[in-house]
Amino acid sequence: MSTDDIVRTHLQELRRGTVVVASLSALKEPGHGYGLLQTLGEYGFSVDANTLYPLLRRLEDQGLLTSEWNTEEARPRKVYRTSAAGESVLGVLLEDIENVHQSIKKLTEGNRS
Amino acid sequence: MSTDDIVRTHLQELRRGTVVVASLSALKEPGHGYGLLQTLGEYGFSVDANTLYPLLRRLEDQGLLTSEWNTEEARPRKVYRTSAAGESVLGVLLEDIENVHQSIKKLTEGNRS
Repeated sequence: MSTDDIVRTHLQELRRGTVVVASLSALKEPGHGYGLLQTLGEYGFSVDANTLYPLLRRLEDQGLLTSEWNTEEARPRKVYRTSAAGESVLGVLLEDIENVHQSIKKLTEGNRS
Repeated sequence: MSTDDIVRTHLQELRRGTVVVASLSALKEPGHGYGLLQTLGEYGFSVDANTLYPLLRRLEDQGLLTSEWNTEEARPRKVYRTSAAGESVLGVLLEDIENVHQSIKKLTEGNRS
């Protein structure tokens, strides 16, 4: 494995869970997959459609997103929205991110608490 | 899957990459696996030996850690230390954590930039 590959693998591991958090957060405002893809891109989450769309279906299966079809346009689109359960899970995940972030800060600064 | 299982899975995904960052950071001071396990625990990273020890060998294979045997004690122990390459990768990962953290903050606060 080259150094670039090693870095890329570790970056992917770091980012894997954060797309879930970003999606649950963004979809408090209802939106379809393509719109979410654009929003995530604007915020610096580089995720591609082949990763995001299955993730949205997984989150819907888990009851963290609800969906309905928007049939007002020529081509019907599925519109997702974060459910009450999704908002609750999002709260837990955001708290964990904050805790881990603080832990890493303390660790890199070398002052145990 | 119960709600607890769902939350647990997402938490695991979120934390997966952070143990690498914590380990590379802690092992700037040389240490053996068991000591690192304790240090990580003190800082709130709950990781067990069956996860950490293979991870340390993987990081060594990738050249991010070096190791030597400490034979001064009754039972020889492998002592790990973050290599120059490891410090460089750590820098990249820490920067990414910071960026993603800022992105999530912006997204949850709803003010695009």
